[in-house]
Amino acid sequence: MLPLGVPISVLSDSYKATHFLQYPKAHKMVAYGEFRQGFNKDKADTRMVSYGIRYLVENYVAKPWTMEDVEMAEAFYSREGDLTLPAAPPQTPFSSATRDYPPPRPVCRAGYFPVKLEALPEGTCIHARVPVYQITATGEYSPLCTFLETLLTMIWYPTTVATLSRKARDVVEVSFGRTSDGGPTSRLVESRLVDFGFRGCTSVEQSIIGGCAHLLSFNSSDTMSAAFYAQFKLNGGRPVGQSIPATEHSVMTSWPTEAAAMTNMIDNFGTGIYACVMDSYDYCKALSEVLPSVAAHKVSRGGYLVLRPDSGDPTEAVLMALNAADKVFGSVRNSKGFRVIQGCGVIQGDGIDLTTMEKISVAIEEAGFAADNVSYGMGGGLLQKVNRDTMSFATKLCHIVYEDGRPADIMKQPQTDTGKFSLPGILAVKRVNGVPTVFPADTAEVAPHENLLRVVYDKGPLEGVWDDFDTVRARVAAEWMALPRSADNISSSLREKVRQQMALRGKVPAIAR
Amino acid sequence: MLPLGVPISVLSDSYKATHFLQYPKAHKMVAYGEFRQGFNKDKADTRMVSYGIRYLVENYVAKPWTMEDVEMAEAFYSREGDLTLPAAPPQTPFSSATRDYPPPRPVCRAGYFPVKLEALPEGTCIHARVPVYQITATGEYSPLCTFLETLLTMIWYPTTVATLSRKARDVVEVSFGRTSDGGPTSRLVESRLVDFGFRGCTSVEQSIIGGCAHLLSFNSSDTMSAAFYAQFKLNGGRPVGQSIPATEHSVMTSWPTEAAAMTNMIDNFGTGIYACVMDSYDYCKALSEVLPSVAAHKVSRGGYLVLRPDSGDPTEAVLMALNAADKVFGSVRNSKGFRVIQGCGVIQGDGIDLTTMEKISVAIEEAGFAADNVSYGMGGGLLQKVNRDTMSFATKLCHIVYEDGRPADIMKQPQTDTGKFSLPGILAVKRVNGVPTVFPADTAEVAPHENLLRVVYDKGPLEGVWDDFDTVRARVAAEWMALPRSADNISSSLREKVRQQMALRGKVPAIAR
Repeated sequence: MLPLGVPISVLSDSYKATHFLQYPKAHKMVAYGEFRQGFNKDKADTRMVSYGIRYLVENYVAKPWTMEDVEMAEAFYSREGDLTLPAAPPQTPFSSATRDYPPPRPVCRAGYFPVKLEALPEGTCIHARVPVYQITATGEYSPLCTFLETLLTMIWYPTTVATLSRKARDVVEVSFGRTSDGGPTSRLVESRLVDFGFRGCTSVEQSIIGGCAHLLSFNSSDTMSAAFYAQFKLNGGRPVGQSIPATEHSVMTSWPTEAAAMTNMIDNFGTGIYACVMDSYDYCKALSEVLPSVAAHKVSRGGYLVLRPDSGDPTEAVLMALNAADKVFGSVRNSKGFRVIQGCGVIQGDGIDLTTMEKISVAIEEAGFAADNVSYGMGGGLLQKVNRDTMSFATKLCHIVYEDGRPADIMKQPQTDTGKFSLPGILAVKRVNGVPTVFPADTAEVAPHENLLRVVYDKGPLEGVWDDFDTVRARVAAEWMALPRSADNISSSLREKVRQQMALRGKVPAIAR
Repeated sequence: MLPLGVPISVLSDSYKATHFLQYPKAHKMVAYGEFRQGFNKDKADTRMVSYGIRYLVENYVAKPWTMEDVEMAEAFYSREGDLTLPAAPPQTPFSSATRDYPPPRPVCRAGYFPVKLEALPEGTCIHARVPVYQITATGEYSPLCTFLETLLTMIWYPTTVATLSRKARDVVEVSFGRTSDGGPTSRLVESRLVDFGFRGCTSVEQSIIGGCAHLLSFNSSDTMSAAFYAQFKLNGGRPVGQSIPATEHSVMTSWPTEAAAMTNMIDNFGTGIYACVMDSYDYCKALSEVLPSVAAHKVSRGGYLVLRPDSGDPTEAVLMALNAADKVFGSVRNSKGFRVIQGCGVIQGDGIDLTTMEKISVAIEEAGFAADNVSYGMGGGLLQKVNRDTMSFATKLCHIVYEDGRPADIMKQPQTDTGKFSLPGILAVKRVNGVPTVFPADTAEVAPHENLLRVVYDKGPLEGVWDDFDTVRARVAAEWMALPRSADNISSSLREKVRQQMALRGKVPAIAR
């Protein structure tokens, strides 16, 4: 049984249940998935962190299906009034009743989904247009090549979050480089962006997938589902993420006064790092009256208090808190001339995205505060306000070997949107001057060991194909910084293939000009 | 074990693992969840379809936890280097080692999560500000009242999708009312918006939750995970959603010509309803040359062909297809004077949201075509391009009974954002002139049987609390149309309570003015 009790034979768009009848008879079919653009269509920086294939393969594709799955799917496909499938008993690519489709025909009984999957190693940093996976189906199973497209396309999500999170780390590193004694490699950097996105997710599963993607570039997360999953399912039990004790409004408002709530926090957590939300009633007053009233107690315990605004203009709210804290606790000037508040800082967790992070980091610098004083919490901005268009992900068929043995490269090239063209032929990815570059697989230019697309599934699970989470993290850290912000990553041999394809159909896509 | 192998004791934001130490000692605590605004902050229409509590309760809350869950959570909470919890062995609300918190203290061993949950019946149509659920925790478990907030807050998602989908149905009904013989109650209406959103989801679980929400107002869906789940898990096996056979680009491009691909479709599916995507190479040419070339074969089979543009300007693309189909297959004029094309129509599945749907429906009317000719497919726009801010969902503490027996109503009222104030006291919901209206629960105004908030979980699962999917659908259909677009839904007794609370703190929120 799969995680949510829905068999893999219905984990697809319903039109895909009919595609096995729509393809020409074939001995082999190949499809691949790619992001066609950089984050938010950024043309100057098209880098991305390829991530998330492991979750989909381990939890869905590499699970055996059972006769119960087949029967449940058959019950579903034969639903009364259904318009999808042409005959009763229904022809499905999974039923034993697939009668009218002449051999070779897909007849899948208990077992594993009969395709081969290649993918980039988790955490590989690439530019747009590099295939992140490739699906190969052969023989009688050829027409099932694209059935998993719906499921695998969901790699858009962890890759997009991993990229967003890594870009946020760039913002933090720049800010530390300019204003902190520790510079961009300060050990504080990796705790500066906390994942506040759990409740803004659509589902627990999303929180796990997106939350793990964030943990590739930071170690701070309030999304425990992800921290738990990353630690125990992806990293052999070794801890991956953490957070600090913090109040929410219900805590502040359940005490007779905010001062009483803060006093209790200091009593319980005052020797460590802890946070208090400050806007339950009157943010200004909380900073100017409540904070000073508990300051002596706070200082007596020796820990680090983080003030959390949660409404109003994010930049203003942060500056107000910094100034208030500076006044109450004092600050020292660091070697770069910026102030570091003593035992107190601010976390802004409301209204945070890449743009507001950048704006706040500039504003605190202009106000003379070091980056050390401020953390960010990103919720919906991190885990939910992204979509498949954010980096334009799509899966496309690229190659077919017809019944008569004739091979053909396939390329979608809509004139109505030349950005939506796809790459023709079986693909390989090889580093050229450090840049993962796309090649045709059928040339001598890429030796098998050079191909970054590795087989991760072959009609069943394979052993030893996944790196642990620490390894993936290290890969992201090393590769991201080494990659130019954009690059010409289509090899001339593939470019030539594109030209040939377009000559067949007329129009020249921009890539081939 | 829960669906994804993560115990409920870590299905929360990490700060919530520390809140049991942060609340004042209490005998009882109550919190509730509400949407503070209408869809996309629409002030003129604040209606919404409350939906999705069943999934969360059935799959997560009402599952027993085991000693294994407790041990796994303890291993997680004791992770090396963790900053969250104050002592080793860790104090967690779930561990047997919760030593230092004096009784009453939460000590949860194997069993069920020890709170009571009330919720609106699935599919209840309400306006913004009506509580959709309320959580009550008593005795030693009081400090666990808000632990499930993270999980339950995810009801924002199915409710937002259900609302968006129902608003889309409004658009379709208006269009049918103006241009179709069948009018707004035409049986075509409920197939007009197809869920194309599966691959644009972040996860399979999301596709199930969001896809089911769409199926409340339409019966068309390509998201088979949801159609399967709704049929077998929510509706006793009775079918809920369906779709039609349709090509994708890989089908069109795998044949030597698009005409060959279409011919094969007509051979296989030509007696029913089937769709072909038309922009693989040259959309204009596909309409002006390919379509006429297969027209005779298509007509000979007698079925209904749906043309699918997939790039370019959505409105233009639809009009081009309608004009081409009219030219090839002809049309008849209906009783309202609009043309109905013979055996052919269009589905626009690219770039669709509420706005483009409305734009297209106006444009086809202006061009003289009946609504019968056009369907819509909404993908990311339906299932992913929404977030917790779309209707401003939040869960807030509203009542506490302190250790000394003194009760207090609680109200968050940030001056920095008066839209973020919460409602004070235990709440009840009662229909007044058909409008679900919020009352204090501690008045005689709401008899128990009148309260729309029903107990759906009480320290364990309850029998017979869920309606089947057909019932929920019927509820949405009946209640949505009966509800005014906006309404004053705060009772005067609750308004008085708000006034008292705000008098305690100073500022008057808009609601009490």
